[in-house]
Amino acid sequence: SGLVLVKNPHLDLMEEDILYHLDLGTKTHNLPAMFGDIKFVCVGGSPKRMRAFAQFMRRELGLAHAGEDVADICGGSDRYAMYRAGPVLSISHGMGIPSISIMLHELIKLLHHAKCRDVTIIRIGTSGGLGIEAGSVVITDTAVDSSFQPRFEQVVLGDVVVRSTELDKDLAEELLACSRDIADFPTLIGHTMCTYDFYEGQGRLDGALCSFSREKKLEYLRRAYEAGVRNIEMESTAFAALCGLCGLKGESCRFYLL
Amino acid sequence: SGLVLVKNPHLDLMEEDILYHLDLGTKTHNLPAMFGDIKFVCVGGSPKRMRAFAQFMRRELGLAHAGEDVADICGGSDRYAMYRAGPVLSISHGMGIPSISIMLHELIKLLHHAKCRDVTIIRIGTSGGLGIEAGSVVITDTAVDSSFQPRFEQVVLGDVVVRSTELDKDLAEELLACSRDIADFPTLIGHTMCTYDFYEGQGRLDGALCSFSREKKLEYLRRAYEAGVRNIEMESTAFAALCGLCGLKGESCRFYLL
Repeated sequence: SGLVLVKNPHLDLMEEDILYHLDLGTKTHNLPAMFGDIKFVCVGGSPKRMRAFAQFMRRELGLAHAGEDVADICGGSDRYAMYRAGPVLSISHGMGIPSISIMLHELIKLLHHAKCRDVTIIRIGTSGGLGIEAGSVVITDTAVDSSFQPRFEQVVLGDVVVRSTELDKDLAEELLACSRDIADFPTLIGHTMCTYDFYEGQGRLDGALCSFSREKKLEYLRRAYEAGVRNIEMESTAFAALCGLCGLKGESCRFYLL
Repeated sequence: SGLVLVKNPHLDLMEEDILYHLDLGTKTHNLPAMFGDIKFVCVGGSPKRMRAFAQFMRRELGLAHAGEDVADICGGSDRYAMYRAGPVLSISHGMGIPSISIMLHELIKLLHHAKCRDVTIIRIGTSGGLGIEAGSVVITDTAVDSSFQPRFEQVVLGDVVVRSTELDKDLAEELLACSRDIADFPTLIGHTMCTYDFYEGQGRLDGALCSFSREKKLEYLRRAYEAGVRNIEMESTAFAALCGLCGLKGESCRFYLL
């Protein structure tokens, strides 16, 4: 049917669903009227960048009117920022798996309540590249954890549940084809490694703590490269797992900033 | 010596240290002049709340001047917000362990470069309470993980390193004593459980995914209560581990909002 799936039997029994961190709700807002025609959701870490992206999309879609500005739909919450550009929703998710997970749970319920159909969700933003040219875009085929395994370990009531982190292969190919229409836009498909930590977790030598040598760091990154990893960030495994379970066609595109 | 410790031999060899997510650096800013007299750092999830807290502290310390407003010291970054009120620094950390970890790595280096001494760091904010009166403040003695263990598992180059999550007991008692001076201010000392997920991880029945019954949820929360847990949030184990390792006197105080 193309509808977004929620896999929670308790939701139907609730009189009201408050999407607390988005400052939206089923009683306070007419979600089908506000969001029913959404076809694309683009998410990224930084609120300022997601605002700039919405402004860019409005210009691209011919929706920008002089003097008019995009308004933050989650203005009452300072956890996330959300902007609209026609059928495109642009939302920030903060940094790390816990932060993106809260946003995705509430976004998925939002799309469900709004009865959206055939929604594509794309994660955009920056990441660390691995053995690739600076300025390249990596389109993720599979998100892997810090042991290079294609899995997301979710703790549910104290027990570990393992989830798949595969992303939509057709969408990845489609995005790669788009990139070929633009000159000087190095783009590749590869694995994306997702870590819980930016400094020690990604082998950085400049954190407040660092117990390893440059050689150990390089050896770890070499092993990651050999396992197919082409970029490193902090949200992709949770993103892939949640999108996959809820029937959202999802993809992750990260720009490698030097 | 009371100085903040960085445990990273590589830092001394670096010509410049850029605290990227704070939009500060050793070459672009005179960190000892800007921060050398800081004695207290208060951190919390929401940027708006940490701004309000800085304004409150300025009034309390007699530092508020008519028409003057607190400025965001990290104004060039939208990842975190930082405000000053005399010797008190107020910083937001976003949601979840990865987000607070990035901020703490850069904050600890900031305090180190600024040659701050005898700094106390207190985490403030809201949390979910467990078997306590709504409106209570929980002062954490020990942060525990979702298996109720006093540990923080940090992945370093793909390997798990286990760290202690004990907080400063004297500081906890001192804060408890302060609370007794205020009428109708229910305050207690207890364990704080830290999870990586807000919905499935904390037994919520209203996420996009929920595979467990109300009974299973209550059974898990009962076990947590029996293990000494009095509130649940998403940052305390990383906070306790990093503060402990870097010689910061740290404490976590969370308000239980119903």
